[in-house]
Amino acid sequence: VRPASIVAVRMPDTPTHEFDADTAVTHTAAGHYQAEITDRWNIGANPNGGYLLAAAARAIAQEVPNHPDPFTVTAHYLRPGEAGTADISVEVVRTGRKLATLRSTVSQGGKGKLEILATFGDLADATGPTAVAVVRPTIPPPADCLPRAPFNSDGFTISNMAYRTETRLDPATGWLTGKPSGVATINGWTRFADGREPDALSLLFFADSLPPAVFEVLDGTGWVPTIELTVHVRKRPAPGWLQARMTTRYLMDGYFEEDGEIWDSTGTLVCQSRQLGMIFRP
Amino acid sequence: VRPASIVAVRMPDTPTHEFDADTAVTHTAAGHYQAEITDRWNIGANPNGGYLLAAAARAIAQEVPNHPDPFTVTAHYLRPGEAGTADISVEVVRTGRKLATLRSTVSQGGKGKLEILATFGDLADATGPTAVAVVRPTIPPPADCLPRAPFNSDGFTISNMAYRTETRLDPATGWLTGKPSGVATINGWTRFADGREPDALSLLFFADSLPPAVFEVLDGTGWVPTIELTVHVRKRPAPGWLQARMTTRYLMDGYFEEDGEIWDSTGTLVCQSRQLGMIFRP
Repeated sequence: VRPASIVAVRMPDTPTHEFDADTAVTHTAAGHYQAEITDRWNIGANPNGGYLLAAAARAIAQEVPNHPDPFTVTAHYLRPGEAGTADISVEVVRTGRKLATLRSTVSQGGKGKLEILATFGDLADATGPTAVAVVRPTIPPPADCLPRAPFNSDGFTISNMAYRTETRLDPATGWLTGKPSGVATINGWTRFADGREPDALSLLFFADSLPPAVFEVLDGTGWVPTIELTVHVRKRPAPGWLQARMTTRYLMDGYFEEDGEIWDSTGTLVCQSRQLGMIFRP
Repeated sequence: VRPASIVAVRMPDTPTHEFDADTAVTHTAAGHYQAEITDRWNIGANPNGGYLLAAAARAIAQEVPNHPDPFTVTAHYLRPGEAGTADISVEVVRTGRKLATLRSTVSQGGKGKLEILATFGDLADATGPTAVAVVRPTIPPPADCLPRAPFNSDGFTISNMAYRTETRLDPATGWLTGKPSGVATINGWTRFADGREPDALSLLFFADSLPPAVFEVLDGTGWVPTIELTVHVRKRPAPGWLQARMTTRYLMDGYFEEDGEIWDSTGTLVCQSRQLGMIFRP
């Protein structure tokens, strides 16, 4: 019998990164999780939609441990989120060998904020033919790109989210200098400001983190709420900068799609996204 | 007091078109509908995924009469559908002034086939700026394009769906002649074979009705099941031929996206679609 003793346990030197701390979820009951949504990812007064989606995806992933990666996730945005407690319900619709489909609702104060449909799988198990028709665009390196100002599009409101990432935009982005180019494409680089490396789940955030490409064809700026966002994560990203291209080709009667492509530091496409948004006119 | 009389009522001469007959739904209980899925829209042994989605959308639309048009609809395909009765449950998640969000499950024999998340609205009410960056591609007129053979990709199985539409593919489509072009784009024209004009709801079917663009970069052919399909209907289409372009840019490890654009006979984009599919290797 070994004698009882007091052991000084050295805590591992792994500080929690902002993204992990702010998307942490607590299992509260069967199929129910709770997250503490912070204002650190706000655009103006409300949390970024990709941040809310990432928090929900962490809850979803816990329900299907053999299917860790978000192959395709669709969120419909019902009402603006806010800092504070969020309840995330998750229901497994079907679990297969390769893929699992789940649905989820994010609520705050009893009101639904996001309604989500997702299929998760294991990207490490993907096998089959590859044929890629697109090379990522050549843009100046991050050091020669322009930082995104931490102001909201009204020019006054602080967007806390700007402090969570380092985002460097192609100097050709006319919106940066108040001269929209007329071509609704925004190219740039992005990564977490605190050194956290990207992973599959964080791409759900990054896919919604750049300025709206549609700003390049609007005279003014404004609020362009997301109605629906779908993200396909195609590869687990390598460490380092992410390169992103956001494009809107069809702005019609105030509604627009925005297509996103994100490449990792090796030049591999890791994520495609598409959202349906609208120009909000109060 | 008018005398009672027997009046011969002439039935209006409006034959039911195939698409309307085969997507008809019956309200069976609060939030529940029933559809009789036919084999007339089969690809090989199973109903086309867009046809199943359209039937579900008819049920969804009945729940929100003030929001008749499918602005964005996402379906996750859980198991192959089959001819026979389908139960369609519909739950209204949120109804707003402009938009309504709903979820729906299509089941057959107690097994879920499609899980759906949708936002409906009224396209006639859409107002705001327009900026379109894309002109539809110039391809030969329908009379100079090639009909799609009513055979499945194995060359033997009959695809009933081929009789429901007139689909004319750009002669540049290498897959038609067994010589895939290496560029995963398929251009063509399509319309219902029985003269029914396209409407917003039918675009959910048309978005999934062309041959897979990925066939143009595969040596062989095969089954390329849809994991998830999202359709944005952007305008109610004018009568006449629809022009479609389907493109796959990223086939990676057996998974691929397929982006679709559909223009109406006036050259207006009416629909965008994206699906995540996989190359099935038995």
